[in-house]
Amino acid sequence: MGFPTLKNDRLIRALLRQPTDTTPVWIMRQAGRYLPEYRETRKQAGSFLDLCKNKELACEVTLQPLRRFALDAAILFSDILTIPDAMGLGLYFAEGEGPRFEHPLRSADAIQRLGIPDPHDSLRYVTDAVSLIRQELDGQVPLIGFSGSPWTLSTYMVEGGSSKEYRFVKGMMYDNPAVLHQLLDKLAQAVIAYLNAQIEAGAQAVMVFDTWGGVLTPQTYRDFSLRYMQQIVAGLKREHEGQTIPVTLFTKGGGQWLEAIADTGCDAVGLDWTIDIDEARARIGDRVALQGNLDPCMLYADHETIRAAVKDIITRFGNHPGHVFNLGHGIHQTVDPEHLGVLIDAVHEFGLEIRR
Amino acid sequence: MGFPTLKNDRLIRALLRQPTDTTPVWIMRQAGRYLPEYRETRKQAGSFLDLCKNKELACEVTLQPLRRFALDAAILFSDILTIPDAMGLGLYFAEGEGPRFEHPLRSADAIQRLGIPDPHDSLRYVTDAVSLIRQELDGQVPLIGFSGSPWTLSTYMVEGGSSKEYRFVKGMMYDNPAVLHQLLDKLAQAVIAYLNAQIEAGAQAVMVFDTWGGVLTPQTYRDFSLRYMQQIVAGLKREHEGQTIPVTLFTKGGGQWLEAIADTGCDAVGLDWTIDIDEARARIGDRVALQGNLDPCMLYADHETIRAAVKDIITRFGNHPGHVFNLGHGIHQTVDPEHLGVLIDAVHEFGLEIRR
Repeated sequence: MGFPTLKNDRLIRALLRQPTDTTPVWIMRQAGRYLPEYRETRKQAGSFLDLCKNKELACEVTLQPLRRFALDAAILFSDILTIPDAMGLGLYFAEGEGPRFEHPLRSADAIQRLGIPDPHDSLRYVTDAVSLIRQELDGQVPLIGFSGSPWTLSTYMVEGGSSKEYRFVKGMMYDNPAVLHQLLDKLAQAVIAYLNAQIEAGAQAVMVFDTWGGVLTPQTYRDFSLRYMQQIVAGLKREHEGQTIPVTLFTKGGGQWLEAIADTGCDAVGLDWTIDIDEARARIGDRVALQGNLDPCMLYADHETIRAAVKDIITRFGNHPGHVFNLGHGIHQTVDPEHLGVLIDAVHEFGLEIRR
Repeated sequence: MGFPTLKNDRLIRALLRQPTDTTPVWIMRQAGRYLPEYRETRKQAGSFLDLCKNKELACEVTLQPLRRFALDAAILFSDILTIPDAMGLGLYFAEGEGPRFEHPLRSADAIQRLGIPDPHDSLRYVTDAVSLIRQELDGQVPLIGFSGSPWTLSTYMVEGGSSKEYRFVKGMMYDNPAVLHQLLDKLAQAVIAYLNAQIEAGAQAVMVFDTWGGVLTPQTYRDFSLRYMQQIVAGLKREHEGQTIPVTLFTKGGGQWLEAIADTGCDAVGLDWTIDIDEARARIGDRVALQGNLDPCMLYADHETIRAAVKDIITRFGNHPGHVFNLGHGIHQTVDPEHLGVLIDAVHEFGLEIRR
């Protein structure tokens, strides 16, 4: 494909548990509303979806945080709900209320009728953006591709949007599990095709966001979420053009199930902030890299408090390969960007220090 | 006080890990909107707060589920935000948006000015309701009193209502911990006085709901939530008129911290549905009783599926004293009451079976 050579490979090496000079760091939602330049571009684009679907603007916002901060990765600017949108559910964003679908899935028939979108067709705007970003990055840092997990996608698709109680999707899970399994299987196939297309287009690592896996029971987590993420891990291109493509799984609220997540064969496990990273490392650090796990609200604290919190996590992880620093969830839109700069510099400083 | 003698003491015995003939069961929010008779009484009362503050109507809705189901306990009908309301924050309910405060706490000054409400004065409507309910129960089953935890109360008080990101309260926690500690200490004192007043008025067991403890890190959970619940456990009247008053602590999302919760000296620990009860029993069952832990969404399933799920939990707990069956969170308003009846009968049936 002729992409420029990667200059900073800390992220890839850490995800594969290879030694690095310091701890790599990127931030979930690093391209987002906390940045004034993002808000400016978003205004130009029109709606959030218009921004996702315009490859030049998606590329621009992906690169914006890299111009401010010494980040070790870029992550594709997109939405986790592109697949359901491509399946015809009619994604839209109600002002201040998050994502909604015009056609929520409430019947076995509707689920049976769903096709698996061809990523080279209805999701072409994503792969085009991936290739453009990869080109524009000029080898500065690697580009991460991503998708929502089948379970997490299904919650939005069945509920019709965000949810507190998961009444419809869990009702289906308990009352009509075969129908939900049919949906999840289609979604797993769709995610595999989508992520492989991102890899072919230039993504150098991929991540699956299981934002709502934590609302399940241990048994239903294994059967309705993890099983399909395992299917995805098994179906992904793990090598592309001679490079290993690391896969990260992240279940928010999944701290009780880390061993099972690590057993999927993924390369890295994302952690939210409800677990100490030294405990997570003791439990699964022999098998996978760990990504995380600062509470996003720590960015409301002063510089010294942020630095101390970064140091605590790096010290807890210790002088071992396999740590990618991140927040435990996406950065809030009300955070002062300067505070994020303090965090990123502190990661590199203390990451260097712990390796001495 | 001359209250009628307690006829069904399964709940109290199970909370104290004494043998019972079958597994006792009650349901969080058992007096609530899923019952048509509740919705009728609520209409008569006016607002939700009017209903809480009218002792006759609060008594009526407390007793309603007992007329339908063979429940082993009544729980005071009230709101967790009565204490902040009595502190002068001006509780109100925005239609469809949950609780709100007219005067959220955002400054050290506002927190310093807060007084600790005298439960015999501004919360008298609660203790009056407790005594009336206890009288009306006529010894049929015990009456549970309750309060929100200091941390959970503080989230509403600082945010001004429900929250997703906990920006203000966690911002205060990280940036100005001494001020938040001052608030939490006042709340702990207020909760102790409030629960002791409920015990004196006739509550035979008490429970502390830490609904939002699960959004904290391990360290901040211990420092900002658990520490104050421990203070409460230590400050409660554990004996009243010759009867032991069991104390239950429930942190939703606290499955990773069960050992620390059990170490507070409480009698029982509430579980949400993200942990298997056999695992919880293996971890802390030598010290405390366990309450839980069916996913509330299971009540959308058919009768046989509900029965199988009840049997699974009772079988996992095994033939040991110390289990109080409950949901892992409050019953949803859209549940068919008949399904709850199936659950309750199944608990008693399988609870008997496991003891054979």
